[in-house]
Amino acid sequence: MASNSFGKNLRITTFGESHGRAMGVIIDGCPAGLEISPEYIQNIMQERSSQGNPYTTPRKEADKVEILSGIYKGKTLGTPITLMVINENTKSEDYDNLTQTFRPSHADYTWYNKFNHRDHRGGGRSSARETVSRVAAASIAYKILEKFDIKIYGFLSSIYNASISSVDYNYIKQNPFFSPDPQIIPKWENILKQTVAEGNSVGGTIDIHIKSCPIGLGNPVFDKLNAKLAHGIFSIPAVKGVEFGEGFNITKMKGSEANDSMYVENGKVKFTSNRNGGTLGGISNGEDIIIKIAMKPTSSIALPQNTVNSQLENTTIEIKGRHDPCVAIRGVSVVKAMCALVISDFLLEPDDNF
Amino acid sequence: MASNSFGKNLRITTFGESHGRAMGVIIDGCPAGLEISPEYIQNIMQERSSQGNPYTTPRKEADKVEILSGIYKGKTLGTPITLMVINENTKSEDYDNLTQTFRPSHADYTWYNKFNHRDHRGGGRSSARETVSRVAAASIAYKILEKFDIKIYGFLSSIYNASISSVDYNYIKQNPFFSPDPQIIPKWENILKQTVAEGNSVGGTIDIHIKSCPIGLGNPVFDKLNAKLAHGIFSIPAVKGVEFGEGFNITKMKGSEANDSMYVENGKVKFTSNRNGGTLGGISNGEDIIIKIAMKPTSSIALPQNTVNSQLENTTIEIKGRHDPCVAIRGVSVVKAMCALVISDFLLEPDDNF
Amino acid sequence: MASNSFGKNLRITTFGESHGRAMGVIIDGCPAGLEISPEYIQNIMQERSSQGNPYTTPRKEADKVEILSGIYKGKTLGTPITLMVINENTKSEDYDNLTQTFRPSHADYTWYNKFNHRDHRGGGRSSARETVSRVAAASIAYKILEKFDIKIYGFLSSIYNASISSVDYNYIKQNPFFSPDPQIIPKWENILKQTVAEGNSVGGTIDIHIKSCPIGLGNPVFDKLNAKLAHGIFSIPAVKGVEFGEGFNITKMKGSEANDSMYVENGKVKFTSNRNGGTLGGISNGEDIIIKIAMKPTSSIALPQNTVNSQLENTTIEIKGRHDPCVAIRGVSVVKAMCALVISDFLLEPDDNF
Amino acid sequence: MASNSFGKNLRITTFGESHGRAMGVIIDGCPAGLEISPEYIQNIMQERSSQGNPYTTPRKEADKVEILSGIYKGKTLGTPITLMVINENTKSEDYDNLTQTFRPSHADYTWYNKFNHRDHRGGGRSSARETVSRVAAASIAYKILEKFDIKIYGFLSSIYNASISSVDYNYIKQNPFFSPDPQIIPKWENILKQTVAEGNSVGGTIDIHIKSCPIGLGNPVFDKLNAKLAHGIFSIPAVKGVEFGEGFNITKMKGSEANDSMYVENGKVKFTSNRNGGTLGGISNGEDIIIKIAMKPTSSIALPQNTVNSQLENTTIEIKGRHDPCVAIRGVSVVKAMCALVISDFLLEPDDNF
Repeated sequence: MASNSFGKNLRITTFGESHGRAMGVIIDGCPAGLEISPEYIQNIMQERSSQGNPYTTPRKEADKVEILSGIYKGKTLGTPITLMVINENTKSEDYDNLTQTFRPSHADYTWYNKFNHRDHRGGGRSSARETVSRVAAASIAYKILEKFDIKIYGFLSSIYNASISSVDYNYIKQNPFFSPDPQIIPKWENILKQTVAEGNSVGGTIDIHIKSCPIGLGNPVFDKLNAKLAHGIFSIPAVKGVEFGEGFNITKMKGSEANDSMYVENGKVKFTSNRNGGTLGGISNGEDIIIKIAMKPTSSIALPQNTVNSQLENTTIEIKGRHDPCVAIRGVSVVKAMCALVISDFLLEPDDNF
Repeated sequence: MASNSFGKNLRITTFGESHGRAMGVIIDGCPAGLEISPEYIQNIMQERSSQGNPYTTPRKEADKVEILSGIYKGKTLGTPITLMVINENTKSEDYDNLTQTFRPSHADYTWYNKFNHRDHRGGGRSSARETVSRVAAASIAYKILEKFDIKIYGFLSSIYNASISSVDYNYIKQNPFFSPDPQIIPKWENILKQTVAEGNSVGGTIDIHIKSCPIGLGNPVFDKLNAKLAHGIFSIPAVKGVEFGEGFNITKMKGSEANDSMYVENGKVKFTSNRNGGTLGGISNGEDIIIKIAMKPTSSIALPQNTVNSQLENTTIEIKGRHDPCVAIRGVSVVKAMCALVISDFLLEPDDNF
Repeated sequence: MASNSFGKNLRITTFGESHGRAMGVIIDGCPAGLEISPEYIQNIMQERSSQGNPYTTPRKEADKVEILSGIYKGKTLGTPITLMVINENTKSEDYDNLTQTFRPSHADYTWYNKFNHRDHRGGGRSSARETVSRVAAASIAYKILEKFDIKIYGFLSSIYNASISSVDYNYIKQNPFFSPDPQIIPKWENILKQTVAEGNSVGGTIDIHIKSCPIGLGNPVFDKLNAKLAHGIFSIPAVKGVEFGEGFNITKMKGSEANDSMYVENGKVKFTSNRNGGTLGGISNGEDIIIKIAMKPTSSIALPQNTVNSQLENTTIEIKGRHDPCVAIRGVSVVKAMCALVISDFLLEPDDNF
Repeated sequence: MASNSFGKNLRITTFGESHGRAMGVIIDGCPAGLEISPEYIQNIMQERSSQGNPYTTPRKEADKVEILSGIYKGKTLGTPITLMVINENTKSEDYDNLTQTFRPSHADYTWYNKFNHRDHRGGGRSSARETVSRVAAASIAYKILEKFDIKIYGFLSSIYNASISSVDYNYIKQNPFFSPDPQIIPKWENILKQTVAEGNSVGGTIDIHIKSCPIGLGNPVFDKLNAKLAHGIFSIPAVKGVEFGEGFNITKMKGSEANDSMYVENGKVKFTSNRNGGTLGGISNGEDIIIKIAMKPTSSIALPQNTVNSQLENTTIEIKGRHDPCVAIRGVSVVKAMCALVISDFLLEPDDNF
């Protein structure tokens, strides 16, 4: 059955179908007294928005967040916080031909089999639009991270066959790709122009760096920090791989190369390297949490594809409508949101010892 | 805090420290009437055991499972099934020098910071020995999979820089590496011999193929099939990366290359490819579930390493004791166990529609 | 921390403060294909409503339910169902004098201590208005009960010192007290008139009869049917006692008087009595589930009361505003709603045996 | 399905059938550093034991607790604590005639219907013997309560028609009935002697007083303190009613009589009465938590009773074996254990505000 809640201490429950009345989320478990303004939330939403971004979907929605509960006089109440976004720009007619035809590599076929009755419009609840609720929820999580002086950076590290070669956190917000490397921009622009011209799409990778994370986050043995992060990240549409630290690369190392040595400097424990990506035994060790995520090419493409319909007939499809040529671009804000939600959840854990 | 339960419908709770009295697990939620014999369970345990395997730890334990509850006259009762393994071969003295010194890339440092008071012997609860409980639990899961005619294969696909080039499921059980490819064996033997001689260790990759999985497993939007599988797999010590289907490779594809087309043959829906690895929208689509896992080199190596102790002094360590040169080998049984537990959990879900 | 979710398979999460923007609920886990119309939901809401009921609060709200998600073309989608009620008739000025003064026997004092920052208006989230979300959620639960031919009756069995002496289920909906006994009406009218005239309030008892419940509902050993029902019922404001079957009366019996004998008639097992109230070992036995609930008098009374304020000064209070003289009357719909939610939850459980 | 876990922060999972190999419990979530000795645990077990108590079952078991995990050098590790009791004195032959016959007012009939395959011996998992695991778990909870200076008293307040008339906490441990009133003892002795002579059983009531509970325990809106306590208590076999404070009595009061006024004395808030029994809005208010519990007469009686068997034939039964004439006596330790578990759980909650 459906499972629309995530988190233990800071528990979110999202709702909404792409072309239904509204998207939204209840955030339960946020302590009272956290300062939250409508403007602040709207500002966070902007990052996921396609508005003003020439390299994302032309579906332009204001995604204006309404606060339905949980915040009074600018502060959280300790009661459930409900954030809602009314679906406005829903061109359902674009999807009329999809009632019975399953788009390749989309969830249409599996949802149809699982639930029988489904809202096919825009993918319904399996649409990436669902992630608007997650980003809204993360606005609360970011405020909790702020309380603990934790910074979280997300950026695009590759599109198709072109990877970044440097990381400048400050540059991320200054370009529509969330790239940390100014020099990759022309290449990515070319790739995307060509991709759009073809009616095609491309994949990409996203990197997450979580800085100043305190030692001790992560609950052995099943809710390890990396396990929960991976759970959250793999729940995002289009994610096909997740690595921590050196990831798959570490399998080609010897132990003497892979291990991160420790030393003491000025009374503080330091590591000579961070190949483990910030966790040991699934618990944060004070180093940066380093994650790399693989996102597949947008499944919706304008090129003709072979597929089947619900009458079990062979057919072809050319997907109209408005789609991101590379979902990884807007995926940055969503992956970052899920990571912030997971980290906040652990920050709110009860004490580990008396 | 600790979090030693996993699963929703088939819920396991594991216990035990490496050098404590016993390891074990409670499996809650298994329906009544499933046939389980002590011999069957012991047979499953054998796969994880190092006994008779020259390429794993010389710590030889029978790992005899005692059934404490939940099974009566050879059948499950619908009550919690408790399986216990007494810890026998625990050479604690090997670890005496580790009371205060943190082994690099182990969980010693993070556990010390998180819990203050810890059982350092053999890593205590952060030891890979904890996974004996998971494999025991999976013996129940495998029986549930059997009821649904689902087959799950796990095998080692690479050690260090040497990868398999063919897959013969039948060969997996015929060699101590759980390799599906007879031709890779001599290479792996050489790598491991040299590694052991050096007092070093190596990483590896594990592949999982789940076959005949029914369409519809996976709970959107947060407990997607891949999300829960990744959660379970990343909770296993030494895992640093997880991919489904084409994984990171798919990020370098265009949509037209990456999408899996569908067609109808003899009234059945088929896919021309399986780049998504058996899930669409996080729900199984009837194709094989394909997972690749990265396991880092065993952290314990005999070579001298720089580290610190709990008095915050610089020191060096040479780790004695008995360790697997490549944890990925025995990791195969553990990863497979976690996958079986996740799949069983979804098989026991309530109905999705009226 | 807050805990605004209830249920396992049919899981509800409620939100909203009495004088905030909206009340509402997400119902997660309802299978797809259940027929639900807006009119049907509104009809269920009517039962809890004070509109047209001279013996309840003069706060008159339409409590119009908006469906935000989860229902498409008149049927549930298997996705989260979100129901929202905008708060309209919120005379916040009535509560201005309560910012700092704690109303006796209300949650003001404990919420102030627990959360520091609170929405005092109308009790905020501790208001009985929160139960509007539960009744909305129960509209889905009642439909599930219908699928299984289960009937649930709730009625008022006593007000103050006057108890019913007969039960006619058909009469319940024909009077504003939800009484099953026409003869008690004049007495209750007199009690309430006098109570209102005094500026006072009175307590009452509610009875629940659940009929045609299948054998086997209830999950040993902790989520027994009566345990979950009691959990749900005690989460309703003003509830101070819960009994099943003979309740406290059974403590004064001998085993030979208390036990319910069984016999076979026409191939069916029957019971000679139902002193256990429909459960044995916490599992439904096919007999009617019989529950009695104690509700205290409305805490808000117009009479002057001694109390303290947040400056820790002694003061007195006369509570203005619009209040039910006997919360047990409207409590009937809320208690019934919680019982329906619990029963539905168990109906959606996975199978108990292979 | 089965549900053998209880609690959120301090989460217990119990296992074991009455005549199986062992009973036991895993306690997950206990912070590290709590001092626990085997002797201390054994001492807690003594309270539930029938050993040396002439008014309870003649089944005499040492109930020796083995610590399998979670405690090292006398202190908790923050890892799951596993406590096991081997079943020794199991006269299964006493139950041979019960294979097919359902004992009236026992769980035999419902378990048979729910699970088909069951362990009938001694009631299997539905036996009150299961509560040995709960009392063992509570030994950890009591230590947590101690850390917060909370005292919890449980006592028998009535047997059959004879109630206590005074409460002396010190006397509770000095008599085999857990009575707080020395003067009731002769009456209870007579009742029980006669009951045993008849081959019958009697009911009773248990009172719980929790003292020095801090303000703020209880999670609105669903996991209120009283709701969770009631859930825990109703999960105990034989419980048919639960009241807080004045309980059902309060329904016959007016608001002006029922409300607890507050005043300030020496800078502290005090209450003039405690009719609400220590909670307001489901959150502890600093007053004593007052609970009354109804326990039905032991279902097993030696007198002949009409019943049915699994072939759906009418038959009679005379229950042999060793049974408590009044389960409420040993019920005191079990009810107290569940209350301690609930309170500990709330004590370990994350903070409510920033």
